[in-house]
Amino acid sequence: MRDFLPEDVRRRQFVIGVIADVYQKYGFEPLETPSVENLETLQGKYGEEGDRLIFKILKRGEGAETGQADLALRYDLTVPLARVVAEYRSKLPKFFKRYQVQPVWRADRPQKGRFREFYQCDVDAIGSTSMTVEAELLSAAADVFVALGFTDFQIVINHRKLLNAVLAHAGVPAELHGPALVIMDKADKIGIDGVRTELSERGLAPNVAETLLEQLNGTPPADLDAWMTAQSAVLNDDGKAGIAELQQVFTLCKSTSAGPHLVLDRSLARGLSYYTGPIFEIRVADLAGSMGGGGRYDRLIGMFSGEHIPASGISLGLERILVVMGERKMFPESAVSAPAEVMVVQWFANRTALYLEFATELRRAGVRVELYPESPSDDGKKVGERQFKYAAARGIPFVAVIGGDELANGTVAIRNMKTGEQQSVPRANLVEILRHG
Amino acid sequence: MRDFLPEDVRRRQFVIGVIADVYQKYGFEPLETPSVENLETLQGKYGEEGDRLIFKILKRGEGAETGQADLALRYDLTVPLARVVAEYRSKLPKFFKRYQVQPVWRADRPQKGRFREFYQCDVDAIGSTSMTVEAELLSAAADVFVALGFTDFQIVINHRKLLNAVLAHAGVPAELHGPALVIMDKADKIGIDGVRTELSERGLAPNVAETLLEQLNGTPPADLDAWMTAQSAVLNDDGKAGIAELQQVFTLCKSTSAGPHLVLDRSLARGLSYYTGPIFEIRVADLAGSMGGGGRYDRLIGMFSGEHIPASGISLGLERILVVMGERKMFPESAVSAPAEVMVVQWFANRTALYLEFATELRRAGVRVELYPESPSDDGKKVGERQFKYAAARGIPFVAVIGGDELANGTVAIRNMKTGEQQSVPRANLVEILRHG
Repeated sequence: MRDFLPEDVRRRQFVIGVIADVYQKYGFEPLETPSVENLETLQGKYGEEGDRLIFKILKRGEGAETGQADLALRYDLTVPLARVVAEYRSKLPKFFKRYQVQPVWRADRPQKGRFREFYQCDVDAIGSTSMTVEAELLSAAADVFVALGFTDFQIVINHRKLLNAVLAHAGVPAELHGPALVIMDKADKIGIDGVRTELSERGLAPNVAETLLEQLNGTPPADLDAWMTAQSAVLNDDGKAGIAELQQVFTLCKSTSAGPHLVLDRSLARGLSYYTGPIFEIRVADLAGSMGGGGRYDRLIGMFSGEHIPASGISLGLERILVVMGERKMFPESAVSAPAEVMVVQWFANRTALYLEFATELRRAGVRVELYPESPSDDGKKVGERQFKYAAARGIPFVAVIGGDELANGTVAIRNMKTGEQQSVPRANLVEILRHG
Repeated sequence: MRDFLPEDVRRRQFVIGVIADVYQKYGFEPLETPSVENLETLQGKYGEEGDRLIFKILKRGEGAETGQADLALRYDLTVPLARVVAEYRSKLPKFFKRYQVQPVWRADRPQKGRFREFYQCDVDAIGSTSMTVEAELLSAAADVFVALGFTDFQIVINHRKLLNAVLAHAGVPAELHGPALVIMDKADKIGIDGVRTELSERGLAPNVAETLLEQLNGTPPADLDAWMTAQSAVLNDDGKAGIAELQQVFTLCKSTSAGPHLVLDRSLARGLSYYTGPIFEIRVADLAGSMGGGGRYDRLIGMFSGEHIPASGISLGLERILVVMGERKMFPESAVSAPAEVMVVQWFANRTALYLEFATELRRAGVRVELYPESPSDDGKKVGERQFKYAAARGIPFVAVIGGDELANGTVAIRNMKTGEQQSVPRANLVEILRHG
């Protein structure tokens, strides 16, 4: 698990701030749930492998001896959301739109780029089956990536009902739908030949496998509308419904930021079994894997309340976004800012009150000021140089000195640490000069 | 442990934002450490009672059977800070000033106002013994409380060395210094007579106890300077040093926001044993207990590196500040803002694209917009009323409608949900009207 030193925190807060701002513009609201849930709330929700990866907390008191666990660390943000929806139904709006940026924990073996504590950033809209939800989720996601400075991203979309219909139409028996999709989903890892082999190993006839590969290839159809119309004509009712919803999403997104980035990917399957409608991923040209993804899952949120509550959401890959932005040096200067805009030197010994008063003056004007904490034992130049070095090492762009001349004249000597240029300015003008040079 | 619904999160983020802004003005930087530490890092650091309250995490794999724990949930923000300082010494500045706002966990029995997961908000300056550090910590704390809207707060201060000297001077044997302070510290709970009884039970002679009660009474001396001079003359070297440092803090704070709020409290002892210098608390008139507190602890931070690293810090009582601000209705409207500034109604059936385009237009102008997600099955008035009700229930201040007339004229009907007033305005002017009425 990682410590985040100041520069890391600033970068993380910058990205989280952009995400929160954008989703707030779409009426999404912040939610936070406790890090610790009852073990029974989490157990059995993530499959066998998931159960093994849950961090369990020892019972207090007698539990210390018996080694029993009753609590567990949050494993994702979806199960807590479902619990919250059941618990606070009457306090929540009919259409509950929330974003949540919090850490989750997985007892994985630590390895490069995988952490046992990492942040998830989930955005979900609950309570409506309308495709308006998908259009807004994708449009906001596009706004986020544009605001972060990405230009080359794609939002790929597919539909679970369409996938099922295509499988049925190709002649895949119902019991093989799941396994076939899992195999198809690995195409980028094992290649088309690998997919062929594995499909055959699962007992799929070669001609069925070929039909599948042809229909579920990742290249978008040359004429999307024509392709949709043609598919709708041959597929079963599920397929027709899936295509109608995809058409709606494409139409709605045209007037939003998502429009230019939205692409059909017929091979997109997404790993999780709970999706029921449109599914999507955000991809960047030169990166394997996705920067985020999600879909509609109409049968999951109601699990704690026994109700049928439609939902659709997207999870943005915060940790991955941070890595890519770091590699591409995409962080604006404001996100990697120095600890202060100016450092005030303590030039004279035992005149801390003078320098603190000066720092206070600047802070009241809104300036971020570092006051060198220690009063020198002697006045003068040598002392000043040591403090200048400290400011340089900290990356503080300006250093302000009040020495003998400045004290007499009501001025401040200000040094630009980048250029080395130093000037004497009236104390009253300093804020203006720091801000506008 | 608590869920924070959107309104709670907004309030918490408002207070945390004010704290972060203020401390950044003083050159403090953000730090975040993992929620989970090695159990051995935490064990033995918080005393026997503390050890019992640590949440322990079960080992994975074979640990699941043996019931052994190897990890634990963060118990405070001080031990992780000490670990970080030892681990990253060469990457950190000589004077490391950090703020950290993160949850901690204590396996307490849940009771009113006490939570097993709660946020601490710690601000510490490491590496300097200068009283500039204390002056800046207190000045920033004063700025925080002023910025939050508090006017009636006091910053009370005392000094551990002064306390020890006073105890010695009153004739308390060295081995009773600790217990005597603990008893004195309970004066607000058990009253002066209770203190007398308990001191006597610990074997303190009545005249010694009376001298103590007289010297350590909570009322500030009428003439602070005179009192300090007088004390300095009679107390031992520790006492003289303590008074000199207090005098410095009072002098330095005069030019800062802390000045008018700073008061000597000779009875202030603070519970923790690790303090070595000035100690302080922030109090509000009508609240028992404090809104924050801290002090200098020059021998703790070096515990992992074996070095001597001076430090001083303050912990702001985030949870308490939130409670008091809630009770006093001190949150500004911006901190309890509605989920959106305006809701766009879907008036016509199957015209979602039109309304989404309109919402996109507003969002691009920076407005937070809720688009009612579902398209009505019929056009018209009845449908509109249902959506108006939804906006009212959500507390959204304005509702925008594009119906037949508006579509024809390029206008929007906008209703102020507080006054009920409705007007038709050109679509291009809407942002201006939402912002400035």
